Amino acid sequence: MASTRFDVLGIGNAIVDVIARTEDDFLAKQKMRKGAMQLIDEAQAVGIYDAMGPAVEVSGGSAANTIVGVASLGGRAAFIGKIKDDDLGRVFAHDIRAAGVAFATPPASAGPSTARCYVLVTPDGERTMNTYLGAAQDLHPNDIDADAIAAAQIIYLEGYLWDPPHAKEAFLKAAKIAHGAERDVALTLSDAFCVGRYRAEFLDLIRTGTVDIVFANESELHSLYETADFDTAVNALRNDVRLAVITRSEKGCLVVTRGETDAIPASPIERVVDATGAGDLFAAGFLVGLSRGVEYRTAARLGALAAAEVIQHLGARPETSLKDLARDNGFDL
Amino acid sequence: MASTRFDVLGIGNAIVDVIARTEDDFLAKQKMRKGAMQLIDEAQAVGIYDAMGPAVEVSGGSAANTIVGVASLGGRAAFIGKIKDDDLGRVFAHDIRAAGVAFATPPASAGPSTARCYVLVTPDGERTMNTYLGAAQDLHPNDIDADAIAAAQIIYLEGYLWDPPHAKEAFLKAAKIAHGAERDVALTLSDAFCVGRYRAEFLDLIRTGTVDIVFANESELHSLYETADFDTAVNALRNDVRLAVITRSEKGCLVVTRGETDAIPASPIERVVDATGAGDLFAAGFLVGLSRGVEYRTAARLGALAAAEVIQHLGARPETSLKDLARDNGFDL
Repeated sequence: MASTRFDVLGIGNAIVDVIARTEDDFLAKQKMRKGAMQLIDEAQAVGIYDAMGPAVEVSGGSAANTIVGVASLGGRAAFIGKIKDDDLGRVFAHDIRAAGVAFATPPASAGPSTARCYVLVTPDGERTMNTYLGAAQDLHPNDIDADAIAAAQIIYLEGYLWDPPHAKEAFLKAAKIAHGAERDVALTLSDAFCVGRYRAEFLDLIRTGTVDIVFANESELHSLYETADFDTAVNALRNDVRLAVITRSEKGCLVVTRGETDAIPASPIERVVDATGAGDLFAAGFLVGLSRGVEYRTAARLGALAAAEVIQHLGARPETSLKDLARDNGFDL
Repeated sequence: MASTRFDVLGIGNAIVDVIARTEDDFLAKQKMRKGAMQLIDEAQAVGIYDAMGPAVEVSGGSAANTIVGVASLGGRAAFIGKIKDDDLGRVFAHDIRAAGVAFATPPASAGPSTARCYVLVTPDGERTMNTYLGAAQDLHPNDIDADAIAAAQIIYLEGYLWDPPHAKEAFLKAAKIAHGAERDVALTLSDAFCVGRYRAEFLDLIRTGTVDIVFANESELHSLYETADFDTAVNALRNDVRLAVITRSEKGCLVVTRGETDAIPASPIERVVDATGAGDLFAAGFLVGLSRGVEYRTAARLGALAAAEVIQHLGARPETSLKDLARDNGFDL
């Protein structure tokens, strides 16, 4: 196996988050499903923005957040995703590069504007997301840098990529290149409603071995196997994929392989300020652990630590060096 | 005197803050004066942005922050300032309107982009600012809405307005309309280096009665009267203006009139996260107090409370309802 230039390369929607605090009744009035991500068109984006309160803009995107977390943990990280050459696109590119991530996807010079996600954070810290995909729609197989993929130990893909029409082709191209170079391919299921939209395709990706590692939270897992019984769903996933991690918020996570299930607790925190990015940063810690060859348990504890940092402030990108945080918590990375 | 539609109308540079945490040695390497505001051109803006870390975008602008604070305290508030019709301009307009401020200045359709301020926050919470004025340069006397000015109890102007070439004409036009309608005109000196650039003109504004109320911090006061002796400077200001407030960070403030000096302590806080907006929000509280006709002491205590809220988080706009905060602290507004 050839040497690697990256520990983790992520492919995902390049999104700027527009975050506002809100009350629960705003979600009800706007007919939003609390805790979920819904896709919106440009007219809906205008309507939601007009109605929502003062906001803060922070670079986001699920896989992009994960990859920034990888870099913050000291991992060698790269990202592929589509922005437009506009103000918010420049914000996205600046932030991910300033975080130490290699990001070279050429921006679109025409077409829809850079993707944005209107994130409404309720007083309980839960986030409800409304995504205008914009330029992220135009991620194309041509944007897949074959050399970079082949040089990355793990490729990390988000389920949300199944929404933009050409991105799934880019996803499949990347997975093929990765496997050709004997690399691992990881997938996050992203969102229960996203799983609902693409259940058959996701199961196919998993069962055909297009993905080697699956990240899911409980509601995504239940949606994938259309069962309300947790153990049934866990056992189904166990039989379908080599390695899975099921995140369970404050209950911690399960690491699931063919022969074993291991429960790892969440890192204790005082208060959830903004849950955005919890799953993304968990994946960052777990993937960095995998790339370092530590035990799954240790990788999961590192994921829990990274997730705990990001939910204690607004925004889904770490605000402190996760490498220092990990070292201070006894991790030897 | 005719009835009012607004308690406070502010005129200032319409700016989006681009905020990043940094270490002190970054400021040294970039030759920035810690704690000060410097004007930068477009090339410098690009250079600083490339060099600085991941950032968060939050609407800012000194007088704009004050006016948002006025609205958050339940005051009737309006703002005049120039944006461009671009992404960041729309962010600025959305945030100030969503905060409950009347904002109707027509955006520029061509010319430089919406102003931005690169704010570097060091671990001690101090902020160092680099402002690219962009579209704010083009605030013009035509942008002054005479009816709105005449209908506002207090007009609040920032010293920073003296930087853009036409804005000072707009400033003078607004002051004239206000006095014609028997309104009060307040000025913040903004920044010690800004005072250094326009000392003679600021003294002239104060001594001719173009402004009735002056807000200054210690370094601005020392710069205005070119003296290192605090009492000398305070007494000079006492003789030049009807009412002045001198803010002294953790030492609180002085309210200075011809016959009296009254010291009011700062509101106790745990830790300064980001000092950006402290003076702006102090002014908000004081002005709302004035508009309600409370004693100067009470107005200053309200200012101290609003300032304490804003320095305990990133960004210069309040993150909670200041009206509720004031009520919880015994103010009857």
